[in-house]
Amino acid sequence: MKLLEERILKDGKIFEGNVLKVDSFLNHQLDINLLSAIGEELKNKYSDCDITKILTIEASGIGVGCMVAQFFNCPLLFAKKSKTINIKGDVYTSKVESFTHKCTYDIIVSKDFLSPDDNVLIVDDFLAKGNALNGLIDIVNQSGAHLAGCGIAIEKAFQGGGDKLRAKGIRVESMAIIENMDCENSTLTFGTRN
Amino acid sequence: MKLLEERILKDGKIFEGNVLKVDSFLNHQLDINLLSAIGEELKNKYSDCDITKILTIEASGIGVGCMVAQFFNCPLLFAKKSKTINIKGDVYTSKVESFTHKCTYDIIVSKDFLSPDDNVLIVDDFLAKGNALNGLIDIVNQSGAHLAGCGIAIEKAFQGGGDKLRAKGIRVESMAIIENMDCENSTLTFGTRN
Repeated sequence: MKLLEERILKDGKIFEGNVLKVDSFLNHQLDINLLSAIGEELKNKYSDCDITKILTIEASGIGVGCMVAQFFNCPLLFAKKSKTINIKGDVYTSKVESFTHKCTYDIIVSKDFLSPDDNVLIVDDFLAKGNALNGLIDIVNQSGAHLAGCGIAIEKAFQGGGDKLRAKGIRVESMAIIENMDCENSTLTFGTRN
Repeated sequence: MKLLEERILKDGKIFEGNVLKVDSFLNHQLDINLLSAIGEELKNKYSDCDITKILTIEASGIGVGCMVAQFFNCPLLFAKKSKTINIKGDVYTSKVESFTHKCTYDIIVSKDFLSPDDNVLIVDDFLAKGNALNGLIDIVNQSGAHLAGCGIAIEKAFQGGGDKLRAKGIRVESMAIIENMDCENSTLTFGTRN
């Protein structure tokens, strides 16, 4: 998606350890028009699917998730990262290792909101090693819902998570795919899939 | 706002300790059409203000924040609850006591995204004692930005936070104001302000 690639080149900042900082438009300050364009593009990609629910994970997935859900005219469900007193009753859980925070945490979704009748599109801002996506896919599988596929804003393809999922037959549509990233020269290269 | 009040009566659940569970439409599963209606109503309320930035706090503020930002055609900025390796450089911080999680945490906003040129509308899903809002207001004040006011989905007026802010001259517009809540009989009463 040209618009997102151009924005990454203009405002993204590359740091050591394969960190791409896009907090001016994607995960701290959010450019709502850009997120809306991502939502529209994902609706085009998945126009053949009758999606009943968008599933994402807090916190930065919620922004892109909302704008995507608007185009599919369905609810957004976000997995929570720790058990709060406001979530009672039965939940689906899975374990996720965080690349950003260097820790493992539980993600939780109430059983009230995912069922075998659902056709789910998983959405997130980033796909690197695929840890968060694997946790969300695990939860979809536990619920018996059908997984239509994944919709990602930025895939860091050189970290391998996206291609591993595709190799398993899971549909992954990423709006910008970064093949490599060079911190020293502050350069990156985009690629495509499919 | 009739639509939100009706939805609270239909799907909200009251638990001991003044907990109103609205996770089927507001803070776990999100009804995007309802959030959009809240955004439109807040745009009507603040139509006289040239808002340059919506400020909220992760995680459940992001959903309503996105839909509000769309109507104001401005970015959404969300305060983070703990320092991550992806936020570098100078930040504004404030301390917030959490009613839900029974703890105190730091909230953080990058100095890159709030300046004296900004006219800020603070948005959140809930207003109870006002702890989160006070933290966000503190951050707006630190930045030198102008605070236009606050836009809230559900205010639990009996916990006093909203009226304390109004008494200080801060504009608070809440889409549903709960005057009292009875856990035993599962009843609640709505009120108005201004």
